[in-house]
Amino acid sequence: MKITAVDPFYLRMPNITTAADGTQDTLLVRVRTDTGLEGWGECDASPLVSLAVYCCPMSHGNIVNIRTSLMGETLNSPDDVLRLSEKVLRHGLDIQQIEHAYSGAEIALWDVVGQQLDKPVYRLLAELSGTSDVAHPKLPYASVLFGDTPEATYHIASSLREQGYRAAKFGWGPMGKFNEANDIALVRAAREGMGADAQIMIDAGVVWGTDYETAYTRAEAFAEFSPTWLEEPLAPDAIDAYGALTEKHPSVPIAAGEGSSIYRMAEDLIVNGGIQFVQIDAGRIGGIMPSFQVRQLAEQHDIQYVNHTFKSHLSLAAALHVFATNPDFDLLEYPAAGSELSQCLVAEPFPVESDGMVRVKEFPGLGVRVDTAAIRPYLASVRIEVGADTVFAQESL
Amino acid sequence: MKITAVDPFYLRMPNITTAADGTQDTLLVRVRTDTGLEGWGECDASPLVSLAVYCCPMSHGNIVNIRTSLMGETLNSPDDVLRLSEKVLRHGLDIQQIEHAYSGAEIALWDVVGQQLDKPVYRLLAELSGTSDVAHPKLPYASVLFGDTPEATYHIASSLREQGYRAAKFGWGPMGKFNEANDIALVRAAREGMGADAQIMIDAGVVWGTDYETAYTRAEAFAEFSPTWLEEPLAPDAIDAYGALTEKHPSVPIAAGEGSSIYRMAEDLIVNGGIQFVQIDAGRIGGIMPSFQVRQLAEQHDIQYVNHTFKSHLSLAAALHVFATNPDFDLLEYPAAGSELSQCLVAEPFPVESDGMVRVKEFPGLGVRVDTAAIRPYLASVRIEVGADTVFAQESL
Repeated sequence: MKITAVDPFYLRMPNITTAADGTQDTLLVRVRTDTGLEGWGECDASPLVSLAVYCCPMSHGNIVNIRTSLMGETLNSPDDVLRLSEKVLRHGLDIQQIEHAYSGAEIALWDVVGQQLDKPVYRLLAELSGTSDVAHPKLPYASVLFGDTPEATYHIASSLREQGYRAAKFGWGPMGKFNEANDIALVRAAREGMGADAQIMIDAGVVWGTDYETAYTRAEAFAEFSPTWLEEPLAPDAIDAYGALTEKHPSVPIAAGEGSSIYRMAEDLIVNGGIQFVQIDAGRIGGIMPSFQVRQLAEQHDIQYVNHTFKSHLSLAAALHVFATNPDFDLLEYPAAGSELSQCLVAEPFPVESDGMVRVKEFPGLGVRVDTAAIRPYLASVRIEVGADTVFAQESL
Repeated sequence: MKITAVDPFYLRMPNITTAADGTQDTLLVRVRTDTGLEGWGECDASPLVSLAVYCCPMSHGNIVNIRTSLMGETLNSPDDVLRLSEKVLRHGLDIQQIEHAYSGAEIALWDVVGQQLDKPVYRLLAELSGTSDVAHPKLPYASVLFGDTPEATYHIASSLREQGYRAAKFGWGPMGKFNEANDIALVRAAREGMGADAQIMIDAGVVWGTDYETAYTRAEAFAEFSPTWLEEPLAPDAIDAYGALTEKHPSVPIAAGEGSSIYRMAEDLIVNGGIQFVQIDAGRIGGIMPSFQVRQLAEQHDIQYVNHTFKSHLSLAAALHVFATNPDFDLLEYPAAGSELSQCLVAEPFPVESDGMVRVKEFPGLGVRVDTAAIRPYLASVRIEVGADTVFAQESL
C-alpha cells in the first residue's frame, strides 16, 4: 500500500470553557491508502497547534511537516510504522510539538496496518515484542472532576456508584486551591459517595508545583480514605521534587506521567522520580509504540502502567491495545462525563460489560469506527495562508 | 506599564533548502506597551507552529494561547516577567510547543523591562540573582557546516582563519553519513584549515542516535586533532546513551543541550548524561530566565555553559545577556555564514572587536535594534481561519 492522504480534522463544542475538561475539542487524523483503507487516530493536544505540524512550511532539514514525511510512503507492516515514525520524528527534530501532533497519525497508521493484516493492534504488538497475545479485561474507573464543594463531590460520587462504577478518579477543580481541611473534605466526600468497597483515586492536577512537602502532608492526610493513588501532586517536569516525595514513602502511592510528551519524560519519572503508577497518553507521547515502550519499562521496574485518556473512545481504543495483554495492569481510565462530541465520536463505544469490566475489541486495527456523520456538525474548518500560499485547506470529513 | 500588543512575524528567505541552516527563516515577536516601549525576541522554532501558539483557540484551562495570557498585563519589573512566564506556562501546560513559542515573547519582555529601567538585561539578571554584574568578553567561534568533502571543509576553515577567527565549529553535512575514514578526514581538514593554534569544535548533529559505542570510537579517533568538544553525537533524549558514553571518559569532551526545550532536559543531560559543555538556545527553552537557570546549574556542576545560536544577532544578544557575567564561560557561538535575512535583521550586529572578542552591549534592554525596513521584504504574511473566526491576521511590521 501507498499512503495517499493524511488529513487532520479540528472538532469542537460550540462553547469552550476553562474547565479542566479535555473533551471540549479534539484533533482527529485520517490516513488513507491507495487500496481504499482508512485509519483514524486522535491527538490530546491543542488542535490548531498540532494541525500546524501537518502543514508548516519547511524551515530546514529538521523542520519538515508530517504530511510531507508520510505522503506517498509504503505502508504494509508494523515495521513500516516504526520506519515511518523514525522518519517523521527525525525530520521534525526541531519541532517541539512533533510528538503531540504525530500521535494521531501514528495511531491511524496502526489502524490501517491492522485492517490490512486482519488483526487487532494488540496482537501486532504482541508479535512484534514476542510477548503474550491474550487480552485481559480492565476495571474501568470513571474519570471525573471534583465538584466545587465536598457536597457536590459527594453527589457526583453517589451517582457514579449508582451507575455501577467500582472505581472512580476525582480531579482538579477545588483540590489544593483553598486549604488542607477543604482538600480532606473533598476526598472524604469522594470516599463516602463511592462507598467503602470502591477504589477511589485523587488527581491533584499539578497543584503543588515543586512543593513536595505539602504533597507529602496531603498524601498522609488522605491515607485514611485509602485512595489507590495520589496523581500529579507536582509539576510534570519536577523530577527532583517527585524523587524527594517518593523517598519519603508516602502512605498513598504516587501516580504521574500524563504530561509525558517524549518517552524520556516517562522514563525520567520512573527511574528518577520513583513513581508507582505511570500514566501515559498515547495521544501525546507520539502514539501507540512509545506508549508500549513505557509499558515495557513499567514491567521491568515492577510498577503499574495505566492509560491516561480524557478524549473520546477512539483514544480509549488506542490506549487499550497498548496494555491489553498485561493482566496485572488492570485499571483503565474511562472517561465517564465527556462532551457530546466525545460521546458520539465512535459508532460503538466501549461498554462496561455485565461483569463491570471493559475489553479491547477483537476487530482488525483499532476495532472502532469513527461516526463521521455524527461528528460533522462539530468540524471547525481551518484555512492557513502563508505568504501567497494556502498551506492548509480543509478536506471534507 | 500595560502590555498592549504581542505580535509574531514569520520571516523567510525566498528559497528554503533542506540544509541544516537555521537562518533560512525565523519567528520574531514584538511586544508593545501603553508607554510606547517596544521589545523584540526571536524563536528558534518552526515559525508557523510557534505562531499558532499565539492564537490557538482555548481548548480548556490548560490550553490557552500566549497572547491571551499576556494582553493587558502589567509589566514593570523583572518580577513581572517571572510572574507572566509562570502564567503563560501554566495556562499552556498541555501545549507541547509552549516553550519554543514563548521564547520570543519572554525575550521581548526582558527587552522592554530593560528599556524601562534603563539597564542592560544582564544587569537585571545579576540584581535578581545577587551575582556579579561585571560583563566579560567572549571568544566567538564561527559556527559553520562541514563542506561536502574534506577539501571543501579545508577551504571553509582556511577562509575563516583568514577572516581572523581563532575558533570554529564544523557541523552536520557529511559527518557520520559515510564511514570512519571520511569522518576523520573531515576533522583533519578542519584542523589543518584553521591551523594548530585555533580551537575547533565538531558537531555530529545527532547522527549516531543511541549508538554510544560509535560515538566513543569517533571521539577517540578525533582526539589527535584536539577538538574542544564533540557535540551532539547522540539523540537529544538519549540520556542513558549519553551516560554510557561519558562514563567511558572519551578523550574529547562531550557537548550537548541545544535540543533542550524544557529546563529538565538540560538538567537531565548534566546530572544523568554527564556532559561537560551544556549548550542552551534561549530561543527554544522558553527564553532568557530558564537559560540563566541552566547557567547556574552548570556553575554548580563545574561544567561549562555555552550558548546555542543559529539565528540572527537578535538571538545572539539574548544569548549573551544570559552568561556575560561569568568569565569562565568564555566561548560564544557566533553564526558566521547566515542568510541575508539573518545578517540584516539587527541594525548594528555584534562586531568581532580588534582583540578578537565579542562583548555584550551596554545599552538598555537587549541593546540591539531590529531593522524593520531591512526585514520587511522577508515577511511572510500569515492568516489563519478556524470555523467562522479569523484567529490570526498579520499585523504590519
